[in-house]
Amino acid sequence: MKIAVLPGDGIGPEIVKEAVKVLHALDEQFEMEEAPVGGAGYEAKGHPLPDSTLALAKEADAILFGAVGDWKYDSLERALRPEQAILGLRKHLQLFANFRPAICYPQLTNASSLKPEIVSGLDILIVRELNGDIYFGAPRGVRQAPDGAFEGAREGFDTMRYSEPEVRRIGHVAFQAAQKRDKRLTSVDKANVLETSQFWKEVMIDVAREYPDVTLSHMYVDNAAMQLVKAPKSFDVIVTGNMFGDILSDEAAMLTGSIGMLPSASLDRNNKGLYEPSHGSAPDIAGKGVANPLATILSAAMMLRYSLNKADQADRIERAVQKVLEAGYRTGDIATPGCRQVGTAEMGDAVRAAL
Amino acid sequence: MKIAVLPGDGIGPEIVKEAVKVLHALDEQFEMEEAPVGGAGYEAKGHPLPDSTLALAKEADAILFGAVGDWKYDSLERALRPEQAILGLRKHLQLFANFRPAICYPQLTNASSLKPEIVSGLDILIVRELNGDIYFGAPRGVRQAPDGAFEGAREGFDTMRYSEPEVRRIGHVAFQAAQKRDKRLTSVDKANVLETSQFWKEVMIDVAREYPDVTLSHMYVDNAAMQLVKAPKSFDVIVTGNMFGDILSDEAAMLTGSIGMLPSASLDRNNKGLYEPSHGSAPDIAGKGVANPLATILSAAMMLRYSLNKADQADRIERAVQKVLEAGYRTGDIATPGCRQVGTAEMGDAVRAAL
Ligand SMILES: CC(C)[C@H](C(=O)O)[C@@H](O)C(=O)O
Ligand SMILES: CC(C)[C@H](C(=O)O)[C@@H](O)C(=O)O
Repeated sequence: MKIAVLPGDGIGPEIVKEAVKVLHALDEQFEMEEAPVGGAGYEAKGHPLPDSTLALAKEADAILFGAVGDWKYDSLERALRPEQAILGLRKHLQLFANFRPAICYPQLTNASSLKPEIVSGLDILIVRELNGDIYFGAPRGVRQAPDGAFEGAREGFDTMRYSEPEVRRIGHVAFQAAQKRDKRLTSVDKANVLETSQFWKEVMIDVAREYPDVTLSHMYVDNAAMQLVKAPKSFDVIVTGNMFGDILSDEAAMLTGSIGMLPSASLDRNNKGLYEPSHGSAPDIAGKGVANPLATILSAAMMLRYSLNKADQADRIERAVQKVLEAGYRTGDIATPGCRQVGTAEMGDAVRAAL
Repeated sequence: MKIAVLPGDGIGPEIVKEAVKVLHALDEQFEMEEAPVGGAGYEAKGHPLPDSTLALAKEADAILFGAVGDWKYDSLERALRPEQAILGLRKHLQLFANFRPAICYPQLTNASSLKPEIVSGLDILIVRELNGDIYFGAPRGVRQAPDGAFEGAREGFDTMRYSEPEVRRIGHVAFQAAQKRDKRLTSVDKANVLETSQFWKEVMIDVAREYPDVTLSHMYVDNAAMQLVKAPKSFDVIVTGNMFGDILSDEAAMLTGSIGMLPSASLDRNNKGLYEPSHGSAPDIAGKGVANPLATILSAAMMLRYSLNKADQADRIERAVQKVLEAGYRTGDIATPGCRQVGTAEMGDAVRAAL
């Protein structure tokens, strides 16, 4: 089994290194091959997603991804900026199903900006569609407004769109995820305003007929943004489009107060996937050895479970992470008085030792 | 001066009644005329925004709006549903500038689901553009996908668009609002993905040249959704488009835990405006006399300040609300042990008495 390792920028290399360390400590044989992506791809080959990196990602069984982005690339034209790498990988590999768990670890409840009673025991899953929506819809660009009150003025424009097969396939993924959990699925849309949302909602209702054991409800995105703050534990699984999912999954992650702990998976229809921490590249702390590698290590666990069919090894890693948390190990982002504050490498070592 | 009074549905009539009571207690002469809107408009005249209601709104100097919506209209076609009234009023009256303050009243800090230290003293202002974006962009609808991987399949689609004059006018409004506050403006977009956002950002940067005293920063919408949870007090004024503003203003309102306290204003270029509470029609508690009228009363104060040029009267109302809070009056939504829990009418009476 071959894993493409794409460390990327900022803290990416440091945290991926720890995840690789943990993978090596398992009694499994993985072929791992590394390639530059994001700003690192641009530096090495002139493009955030070099052809050779894309080829490796295509050929591999799974992709372990760090993070991309750095202020120093802000002045590049958009097509060359680091984020294009992740958008390109999602699109070229048809990674349409993004799993973003928002879990509040019992040991870390206090890290949240929310009151402990609101978030303790929080465990929700956001299933975000990744291949469609306004992210990729055409036409898009800058033009002279063709009509309306400001006809003739310059305007920027984009196209939101979702086709029936796209909604169906993410719907099936979400219903099946809900079946393995508390069997409650909330489909988030803006059907009171958007045609795309109204269409999305109708298709979801149709898909629901195949999952009579799952309770489907619908919520407008503005209300979802409120309910996540007010009563996040009222959700089980949320399914939504690419744009709303971008916003809500980040909001939900931040509710836990420990985004440095949250993994994510982006899967294609055959469960091949890209695995990355939910947090970003944090260029401000890059190279200092203080970043939290646990989200990446837990992403590697997700990879073992979903793409590599090694659920037992995934369990081992997750238990090891639990153990190091119980033993009081904390990186700076989740540190509390009296904890054992450690750096990136020590945290990786602690997990490896706890395996 | 003429005020159009549009109570709407659910708790709308009850809360508007209290705001009208407070307005009547001022030493001012207002002509007030009431008209049905939302579900009430549909019941009375077959349309959520009857022609006569729209005519009254156009002719008036300001509009005091309650809330619209009720589950019982869920099965109506979208064009007849209550929300269309508010969208129609915004569009027909060119109310493009939505002011949504998120304020945490010192007496109510504990109502928040966030820790007191995160929200105490919170006072941010969201300036949301209301006339453009994907809310009104054409073309939109359901069609056969013209291209792409699912060419020929049915798809829902919408158009996001912002023209330069639209961005400029909301930009000026936001910069001027920031000038009256802490002079920090955050423009929220998704410029790393959307052409509309990239265009929005460029125009904002250009508008900023006229406001050298205001510090402009840019933030992606997903990050803004996170920072609102993590450190809401780090913001002063946020300016954003219609869609992102819908989501973020509700999220921000809920941070305070007392959305029943939050007013809003939607202004045209001459400061004619529509004033409404930030919360919805709450059909579950309608007619019970328990709804909190303070957001509507504070909306009436905003109306006096922005549209009717009676800042002194606005101050009087706001001080009166402070007094009733200090005296311990609370409706159910903001009740705490030991408070003086009152109903809708008693709260209105208390404010009137405190004027
Ligand atoms: C970097 C950016 C293009 C990306 C997105 O918007 O999808 C990121 O925010 C994410 O959520 O993975
Ligand atoms: C009712 C709905 C159409 C409306 C909107 O999306 O603008 C509401 O959510 C609001 O924010 O005023």
